[in-house]
Amino acid sequence: MHARVELIAITPDAEKLIETAGRTCYDSTPKAKPNSARDFIANIIRNGHHSVLEHACATFRITEASRSFTHQLVRHRLCAFSQRSQRYVDEKSFAFVEPESIRQEPEARRLFGEFLNEAKDAYGRLQELGISNEDARFVLPNAVQSEIVISANFRQLRHIFCVRCDRHAQWEIREVALQMLRIMKKEAPSVFRDFEINEETATAHTPFWS
Amino acid sequence: MHARVELIAITPDAEKLIETAGRTCYDSTPKAKPNSARDFIANIIRNGHHSVLEHACATFRITEASRSFTHQLVRHRLCAFSQRSQRYVDEKSFAFVEPESIRQEPEARRLFGEFLNEAKDAYGRLQELGISNEDARFVLPNAVQSEIVISANFRQLRHIFCVRCDRHAQWEIREVALQMLRIMKKEAPSVFRDFEINEETATAHTPFWS
Amino acid sequence: MHARVELIAITPDAEKLIETAGRTCYDSTPKAKPNSARDFIANIIRNGHHSVLEHACATFRITEASRSFTHQLVRHRLCAFSQRSQRYVDEKSFAFVEPESIRQEPEARRLFGEFLNEAKDAYGRLQELGISNEDARFVLPNAVQSEIVISANFRQLRHIFCVRCDRHAQWEIREVALQMLRIMKKEAPSVFRDFEINEETATAHTPFWS
Amino acid sequence: MHARVELIAITPDAEKLIETAGRTCYDSTPKAKPNSARDFIANIIRNGHHSVLEHACATFRITEASRSFTHQLVRHRLCAFSQRSQRYVDEKSFAFVEPESIRQEPEARRLFGEFLNEAKDAYGRLQELGISNEDARFVLPNAVQSEIVISANFRQLRHIFCVRCDRHAQWEIREVALQMLRIMKKEAPSVFRDFEINEETATAHTPFWS
Repeated sequence: MHARVELIAITPDAEKLIETAGRTCYDSTPKAKPNSARDFIANIIRNGHHSVLEHACATFRITEASRSFTHQLVRHRLCAFSQRSQRYVDEKSFAFVEPESIRQEPEARRLFGEFLNEAKDAYGRLQELGISNEDARFVLPNAVQSEIVISANFRQLRHIFCVRCDRHAQWEIREVALQMLRIMKKEAPSVFRDFEINEETATAHTPFWS
Repeated sequence: MHARVELIAITPDAEKLIETAGRTCYDSTPKAKPNSARDFIANIIRNGHHSVLEHACATFRITEASRSFTHQLVRHRLCAFSQRSQRYVDEKSFAFVEPESIRQEPEARRLFGEFLNEAKDAYGRLQELGISNEDARFVLPNAVQSEIVISANFRQLRHIFCVRCDRHAQWEIREVALQMLRIMKKEAPSVFRDFEINEETATAHTPFWS
Repeated sequence: MHARVELIAITPDAEKLIETAGRTCYDSTPKAKPNSARDFIANIIRNGHHSVLEHACATFRITEASRSFTHQLVRHRLCAFSQRSQRYVDEKSFAFVEPESIRQEPEARRLFGEFLNEAKDAYGRLQELGISNEDARFVLPNAVQSEIVISANFRQLRHIFCVRCDRHAQWEIREVALQMLRIMKKEAPSVFRDFEINEETATAHTPFWS
Repeated sequence: MHARVELIAITPDAEKLIETAGRTCYDSTPKAKPNSARDFIANIIRNGHHSVLEHACATFRITEASRSFTHQLVRHRLCAFSQRSQRYVDEKSFAFVEPESIRQEPEARRLFGEFLNEAKDAYGRLQELGISNEDARFVLPNAVQSEIVISANFRQLRHIFCVRCDRHAQWEIREVALQMLRIMKKEAPSVFRDFEINEETATAHTPFWS
């Protein structure tokens, strides 16, 4: 396990809000009962009326993830992102992500570790030569850790989980997506119940594509 | 005053969240202090780093507004909407919006009132003849009231206020936008402080276009 | 058949462009052959790599469609729209859309026709009383014809066809979507081949949800 | 000059299309004349009616640009992107971008060149040890060249030019944005005329923020 995922904000009483918004369409507000959100949301997901899920949002902080990962993540365009900037931040003490396949192969691991040290060294020496952070960063490898805050509505989160918890997804983004999914299953069980997590393969799937 | 606007959800501690997300970019989290959000956000707005404002959202319920208004409102594309459906809802007892210019001209007002009654009558008679709601609604005028729930992030709200609180905006959407702005000024003063409301002209402006 | 749909712009050589963009991802440009776009695109659609389809766009002019229809259409948010404005345009000679269910029921048809005449009359009399077009339009019914120009990329068009050519879609938007689909099947057969049109039910479906 | 920018597709007769779409709003199609697009578009830009510019699109291929650059570029969310994948493509013969500040400082240049060679070496050795491309890429530095195809509508292009041709923009993305702007000024002069290029500072500005 590499990246760390932390929920830092979420729409309060999100499932009730979704029900409230959704019932506006059918003028069925009087049918809302203390426990009616679960069935209402299950229906919405089955019927493909997913726009209603957009009223609720969640914000995550992701740390100890590589720049490879963030470059993939920000390709999701219906989200808000704030990412640690390699232009403005001094990265001379960077940490890095080591892929499992490298960790398990001693020769690869030695080589990888040495190279990352050389990268750190090159970055520091460029700084000493007066090169600005925004140009010195050109030597920083993909493995360098970044930090990113992402906000997305629940419909978009479902889409991210469909695409990124699949077995074809790259391992680092799949690990992050799975952690996000686990959190969302606790926070809004009715909205994410249909995603079944396969612990063995570290994937998740739903019959209701989003 | 016609439409009613009610805040039904907002990101908790929104200004702190914006500061937290924004400081990620500069790795300046340690500089966050109990009261530092206000200045941090003022800087962000001045510098045009508005994407950080996207992490916080608000949801409004708008009622007693016309279908003219909703047709305009849903043209804003970076929002989530759930609207009372004229396909699914029986509108035989509809209420309507009366423009001020019509209200103040007795002959226009009489004519307008009579016509709206005829519209209600035509709708009801079509229903009695077995026409479905989704086809009977073809007689419903723009004046008929609708109900809509809108969610938008704070950056998009700023954009809506720039465009819709301006004197060129149509009066009904301007009234709604102004009500939303008044609410946001209370809920997130640091994010909306720069909008100055002119009570006389019922408009609002900011030097920082969004 | 009511609304008229006309293609007024499309990305030139769109399928080749999609192939060109898509092959960038795999560095497989040398594999592009004069006739390779068809298979390349079929693969992309099967694999769900639909973002590549976003590089090509089409623009349609839709006329003789009701305001009910346009209010639905503009709910698609990943498109560009330019619509005839009832604020700026004088609608005193409006044409209107008559639903089939009303057309086939003589009493409903008579009632509907008379009501539309009253609406035209009310609008004209409000104008004569000095009411501006933007306020007089409050009497205009949903049946009044509008005109709208829509631009969308091919991925979004596929989504619109999935949602709006389905049997649950409202008849007017389904008719428009089907006309758009027929045009796209001619213009970019590789991208829309998988949509099968059922002439009897006036619907269309694909196994590859978009 | 580093990155190369090539226009590979554009909406045919884009300015006429924009005029056509825009005149729909005002029902002023009869006022369109062979040479009326220029003034019509100038008005639209002055008045802030920029949504009309979304009907026209352009597609660029950008090569010989760094991964630092692409990570920034894809943060623009209202575009379509297809990028050379470091998961699928073998990068053992990568080329790289050398910042000007490094090129001009002999010691920095030597160090930078050596380090890039070590990176290439490390990548190749990881491959030989059986590490997949998607994991070996963790050693690839930001300087490694990528290739990306971007499509955007004219409104979004104006926004990119506002933000990225400014003196605060990072030099590589500013160079690319300026090249794109030069191309667009030739292809659609009425839409981009208001951007003034300052050759000395390699920046561009417009009085009409987009």
